[in-house]
Amino acid sequence: MKTGAWLVGAYGNVAAVTMTGAAALKRGLAAPTGLVTDREAFRGLDLCAPGDLVFGGHDIRDSNPYAAAREFARRTGAIPTDLVEAVREDLEAWGANVRRGTVLNAGPAIQPLASEEVRRAPQRGRALVDALAKDLRDFQRRHRLDRVVVVHLGSAEPESEGLEALRTLPALERRLERGQPVPPSVLYAWAALEAGCAYVNFTSSAGTTVPALASLALSRGLPHMGRDAKTGETLMKSALAPLFRARNLQVLSWEGHNLLGNLDGAVLQDPGHRAAKLANKDATLKAILGQKDLHTRVRIDYVPSLDDWKTAWDFIHFQGFLGTKMSLQFTWQGCDSVLAAPLVLDLIRLGELALRRGEKGLMKHCAIFFKAPQGVAEHALEAQDNLLLTYARLASRKARTPASVRIPK
Amino acid sequence: MKTGAWLVGAYGNVAAVTMTGAAALKRGLAAPTGLVTDREAFRGLDLCAPGDLVFGGHDIRDSNPYAAAREFARRTGAIPTDLVEAVREDLEAWGANVRRGTVLNAGPAIQPLASEEVRRAPQRGRALVDALAKDLRDFQRRHRLDRVVVVHLGSAEPESEGLEALRTLPALERRLERGQPVPPSVLYAWAALEAGCAYVNFTSSAGTTVPALASLALSRGLPHMGRDAKTGETLMKSALAPLFRARNLQVLSWEGHNLLGNLDGAVLQDPGHRAAKLANKDATLKAILGQKDLHTRVRIDYVPSLDDWKTAWDFIHFQGFLGTKMSLQFTWQGCDSVLAAPLVLDLIRLGELALRRGEKGLMKHCAIFFKAPQGVAEHALEAQDNLLLTYARLASRKARTPASVRIPK
Amino acid sequence: MKTGAWLVGAYGNVAAVTMTGAAALKRGLAAPTGLVTDREAFRGLDLCAPGDLVFGGHDIRDSNPYAAAREFARRTGAIPTDLVEAVREDLEAWGANVRRGTVLNAGPAIQPLASEEVRRAPQRGRALVDALAKDLRDFQRRHRLDRVVVVHLGSAEPESEGLEALRTLPALERRLERGQPVPPSVLYAWAALEAGCAYVNFTSSAGTTVPALASLALSRGLPHMGRDAKTGETLMKSALAPLFRARNLQVLSWEGHNLLGNLDGAVLQDPGHRAAKLANKDATLKAILGQKDLHTRVRIDYVPSLDDWKTAWDFIHFQGFLGTKMSLQFTWQGCDSVLAAPLVLDLIRLGELALRRGEKGLMKHCAIFFKAPQGVAEHALEAQDNLLLTYARLASRKARTPASVRIPK
Amino acid sequence: MKTGAWLVGAYGNVAAVTMTGAAALKRGLAAPTGLVTDREAFRGLDLCAPGDLVFGGHDIRDSNPYAAAREFARRTGAIPTDLVEAVREDLEAWGANVRRGTVLNAGPAIQPLASEEVRRAPQRGRALVDALAKDLRDFQRRHRLDRVVVVHLGSAEPESEGLEALRTLPALERRLERGQPVPPSVLYAWAALEAGCAYVNFTSSAGTTVPALASLALSRGLPHMGRDAKTGETLMKSALAPLFRARNLQVLSWEGHNLLGNLDGAVLQDPGHRAAKLANKDATLKAILGQKDLHTRVRIDYVPSLDDWKTAWDFIHFQGFLGTKMSLQFTWQGCDSVLAAPLVLDLIRLGELALRRGEKGLMKHCAIFFKAPQGVAEHALEAQDNLLLTYARLASRKARTPASVRIPK
Repeated sequence: MKTGAWLVGAYGNVAAVTMTGAAALKRGLAAPTGLVTDREAFRGLDLCAPGDLVFGGHDIRDSNPYAAAREFARRTGAIPTDLVEAVREDLEAWGANVRRGTVLNAGPAIQPLASEEVRRAPQRGRALVDALAKDLRDFQRRHRLDRVVVVHLGSAEPESEGLEALRTLPALERRLERGQPVPPSVLYAWAALEAGCAYVNFTSSAGTTVPALASLALSRGLPHMGRDAKTGETLMKSALAPLFRARNLQVLSWEGHNLLGNLDGAVLQDPGHRAAKLANKDATLKAILGQKDLHTRVRIDYVPSLDDWKTAWDFIHFQGFLGTKMSLQFTWQGCDSVLAAPLVLDLIRLGELALRRGEKGLMKHCAIFFKAPQGVAEHALEAQDNLLLTYARLASRKARTPASVRIPK
Repeated sequence: MKTGAWLVGAYGNVAAVTMTGAAALKRGLAAPTGLVTDREAFRGLDLCAPGDLVFGGHDIRDSNPYAAAREFARRTGAIPTDLVEAVREDLEAWGANVRRGTVLNAGPAIQPLASEEVRRAPQRGRALVDALAKDLRDFQRRHRLDRVVVVHLGSAEPESEGLEALRTLPALERRLERGQPVPPSVLYAWAALEAGCAYVNFTSSAGTTVPALASLALSRGLPHMGRDAKTGETLMKSALAPLFRARNLQVLSWEGHNLLGNLDGAVLQDPGHRAAKLANKDATLKAILGQKDLHTRVRIDYVPSLDDWKTAWDFIHFQGFLGTKMSLQFTWQGCDSVLAAPLVLDLIRLGELALRRGEKGLMKHCAIFFKAPQGVAEHALEAQDNLLLTYARLASRKARTPASVRIPK
Repeated sequence: MKTGAWLVGAYGNVAAVTMTGAAALKRGLAAPTGLVTDREAFRGLDLCAPGDLVFGGHDIRDSNPYAAAREFARRTGAIPTDLVEAVREDLEAWGANVRRGTVLNAGPAIQPLASEEVRRAPQRGRALVDALAKDLRDFQRRHRLDRVVVVHLGSAEPESEGLEALRTLPALERRLERGQPVPPSVLYAWAALEAGCAYVNFTSSAGTTVPALASLALSRGLPHMGRDAKTGETLMKSALAPLFRARNLQVLSWEGHNLLGNLDGAVLQDPGHRAAKLANKDATLKAILGQKDLHTRVRIDYVPSLDDWKTAWDFIHFQGFLGTKMSLQFTWQGCDSVLAAPLVLDLIRLGELALRRGEKGLMKHCAIFFKAPQGVAEHALEAQDNLLLTYARLASRKARTPASVRIPK
Repeated sequence: MKTGAWLVGAYGNVAAVTMTGAAALKRGLAAPTGLVTDREAFRGLDLCAPGDLVFGGHDIRDSNPYAAAREFARRTGAIPTDLVEAVREDLEAWGANVRRGTVLNAGPAIQPLASEEVRRAPQRGRALVDALAKDLRDFQRRHRLDRVVVVHLGSAEPESEGLEALRTLPALERRLERGQPVPPSVLYAWAALEAGCAYVNFTSSAGTTVPALASLALSRGLPHMGRDAKTGETLMKSALAPLFRARNLQVLSWEGHNLLGNLDGAVLQDPGHRAAKLANKDATLKAILGQKDLHTRVRIDYVPSLDDWKTAWDFIHFQGFLGTKMSLQFTWQGCDSVLAAPLVLDLIRLGELALRRGEKGLMKHCAIFFKAPQGVAEHALEAQDNLLLTYARLASRKARTPASVRIPK
């Protein structure tokens, strides 16, 4: 059983730490800390080992995974440069699998990052989707992979209007042919499904939230899920907001300030690119607390010196018995890409399992990984974890029955 | 249906806010914010209304509920003095129901607080328990109460050795007769059960954790529960620790610093009085995270100027993927007694319901209220809330079936 | 010796606390905590007693000082309602001295607050200035005041272009006559100087920063000073930034987030009204640290539930030896008006002294009170305090020489 | 002009970063960020260049500076391992100059750290001092050094009683001969003065606070200073406390919690070793605020996972006008040894200058470097900086006058 992991944004920080981590796990140089699927409940499942993955991906820049990882280690101090050196061979081998991505409609903050070659690439429309899908099929064939999981790790795209109205593939194709904007995340997702891959949208971009692609996944029998991975401040919100609900304390105001200095932060300085992210970060509170008039605010500010070290201060003003106002504040200081990478590995493992088990459509049990889980109304962390653990228990039971009896849904 | 609420520590801050709040609810001067049992799930149960309660209690000091509430409002600014004035009549009426408590073996930090009269009280041993029980029976008879719930709100007692070995009432009686220390919380709990009341231990003191009393509750068919209400820092721990478990992040160190300036804080300056509290505050993390070598520390420091405004700073150092160390810190600024009071009302309502439904022994569904829930291993907040909500759902279903069918367990 | 204190914005929070405080000091109901001029160094000066002041002022709303103070106490819990009741008589007497202000060019966030009467007031141009000055002269005459100090406490005005070019009174008059915008703070300041009063600009509005008015003050021999009182986050900056300078640590980024919910906060939601304030808050750092490429950001967000309780979180990212990045963060939780009020009293006392001593032009020794001290480049708190203490020492020495020898500068 | 820097505790973190930094400065691999003496005001002085220093020292462990620096970089991530490799040659050369120290009376937390060889060393009493002094003289002669500055960087010693009564060298010698405890810091200081070196006590240990040694310094014409370098939380206190003084705000309580995990933290777990440190950290506030009844508390807790990353949370509760209580809290997250190292270089430079200029006795202008500056009552940071800058200005002026005119004080 050989599994491919295709990362869109293969030269980014998250991809760099994901690949470094997978290689480190393979060589016994790291512990699986931070992998949700390393917990006891997942032991019964025959999940693929992170160390056995073969990586490839798309990117729009001129770089390579080794340089990206080396640079990340140097700039952030989060992972030792020695570790990157120790896995250099793997990073370079995987780098050879990376193909040219697209910046068509990627937005003003992303386009300038692309290499000359990418910017001058002739493909557009349906041909572009086919080319991206071909990259995936070539990858699978060349490495004799049983299954491939595509994870979208590209920078946050600006929101495109009217995508939610594209209910059928022809409608999507028409929009494409007319030259109306279709963001890259949609093209990548489309290509992934065309090529028979599982698809995971780790970002706030559109991906398979376009109804036409959700239908495509169902008709092709493929699993997919998104969007916007929950790694820091929103993760905290989803753990803390239930406290106020459980104690019947009224949240008067929840102010969240996020400081970060990586490429994500730079891109999010653009209000267009920021909009979807802010909406996702805010939705969690409203979903859990159910207060309509809740005063909340989310700010994301670019602080270059912090690089990947996301620093978030949340101030929660709340009211208790007899109108007494009280407060809670927290400061979260986490390395964003290091928090994200093990989740990427988790989603590849769960995506591969879903493919193998013939599950199609939304992987709703993966809601816990996302700020805006597609098709799931539950935002409370523990409730989401119960969804995942229940899935693991059920799948684990099936995993133990003889193979001949297994009936894919 | 008339319910009595007997508060041990009737002149304390928590009792003052509880009574002021109940009276305010009766008069429509306050909203039930902070009452767990005011949530949707409890609508189907015919819980007694906080505004219908009749209050009484024991205390060792010379004071009265009106003076205590007035002083609390003035010192803390947490509740308006106008509100206290508006309910003065009720507070004074309930004050007439308060009886002299005991300081026998109450520890070095509590004894000096007692009035001359209490300190010179002749009763000891079994006679003292009988006298306390008589106070309860008189209260019930005089006010024609259907049921009485006793809530222990006294200051933290020092831990007494050997209590856990007292498995039978005769064993407990022998200890008492021999003059070996039996702390007041045990005597109050004993008296409550003798008098046929439900008993709730809101404090870190022993209460019904003595096996002999747990047996007594069962044989008398009475509900009870404890101990150590979870109102601030530990509440936060029980909401946040599951996040680290869910994400498989390794907690390296969890340092908790509690600052407070009320009587609780003053009493907890004494290492003996502090021991049980610290153990309870720390147990939560170990139970949830299951790490044996977890580095934790809990400090409780007395800061007079803060009065009832508990200020807690927790620093959580944790390790993610590839050994990267990150941190989370929070500052909780809450008014302890205002956080506690609605929970006292909740526990009276749930205690009365349990009495009425003929439930006996530990009210395990109330685990969410306590730092060290008796008989419950679960410390995670959401899981505890599910226990309570499930109970409410089941009890609610039964509440809707004809009375004749209800079979007390 | 009788001194008048004329507050522009007489029904605002700061004025309410200032008057309540002065009356409380008079009656011995409060200590002079927070008054800079109550320190040892000022004992030798014969400063007027806060309790001897007679208050009056301008406002654009329908209200009165007693109602404002009562409402402030109720909403914020910062001062006891009992105290307001105890000084009601004074507040009402002073309320009788308040006159109708102007909202001409006050900006979109202020104008809707004005009473019907104020909005329909016919006066404009030079006549309006004369009318405001007449209010001051009437106040002085009616109460037989030796001297009057005007303190501008109005809401933050939007910046008006071209004011700094108005170098002469005729130029200012021409602008006024042509109907070009001249903000109220300029009109009030002009009127104050016309009426022979000392003038203090407590706000970020223009006031006497218009060169024509600075000249007027000199020609009339009157003292004045501003602008934008330093009460919270900027005060902290002026105390902390020197630490980084003294230790030669490089500040990489200083991010300041201010949350507040009072009228100030509401007005500052408007970007126009906010601009001057943000500039002042940021200038402090640049002045002290002298780093040209310093990355700083100041945010002011409106959080209604906080009311007057300004909550500011500052995150300072800095670099030490060998490039090591470190951080400092602080949370300031202060009641803005309570922090401001004693400074208003200080400035009245110092303004009166300057008038009496015949000092004219900028009261540079008062730089410590302001975010953007007019005519003073020094922003470090301790250096500014030395300026003030040196002034006090020199003035004190003169105060002790025989009266006949005193020569006003 | 060739200067020697002798570090007692030569294998500790601070020494490791100091030497790595000096070597990095020499090779142009680092900027002088964090060096107080790199500021403009010191340009006029002909201070020795950090890169020209020759290092040596005493230590009680088996190690070497290269291993210590390498280990520090790996464990803390604070400095790049590449940098340590780049200066390996220097570190190894300086390591050859390190000699065996003493653990006589070093206290229970330090003694177990010593090497077998050190623990079995025969020398005691006066002979030991002579041996230590001989190490210094050999170092100076072998490297043909013009001057040597000794900096004590050893772990915090327990306080020894009666040291302050030792007014003369014979008294100190008698104590030594009688076998009464004389802590190592005193022996090292004595040896330094015997050998004609300048002496700086960077720690909370006794050093030259023993009057007999202060006299010795004067009689030998040598400069010395201490004690307990101010690098983090106390530095913050000395910058912030003046704010409350300047604004006449009453500090109700100042609670400081220090978390750290390096050897310092481990040693400070011992109450005896901790006492002097706590006293120094607390004295700053009392000195600046001058409030006798000030409620303060300083805690130092050992959190191994933090290693050298000192994390301090201070909570300041204060009272403003009309009794309103407010708060300020800060969290300082700094790498202790990286903060300390440039100050060690500063003190070597200033010590060398004082030696060269013939200054003797306490270097009071260096008060800003210490928590408990010997002979200086001033604790406010800015005032201390003014002392230092004034010294620099005066010395600078003299430096420009012809050498023949310079008259050593």
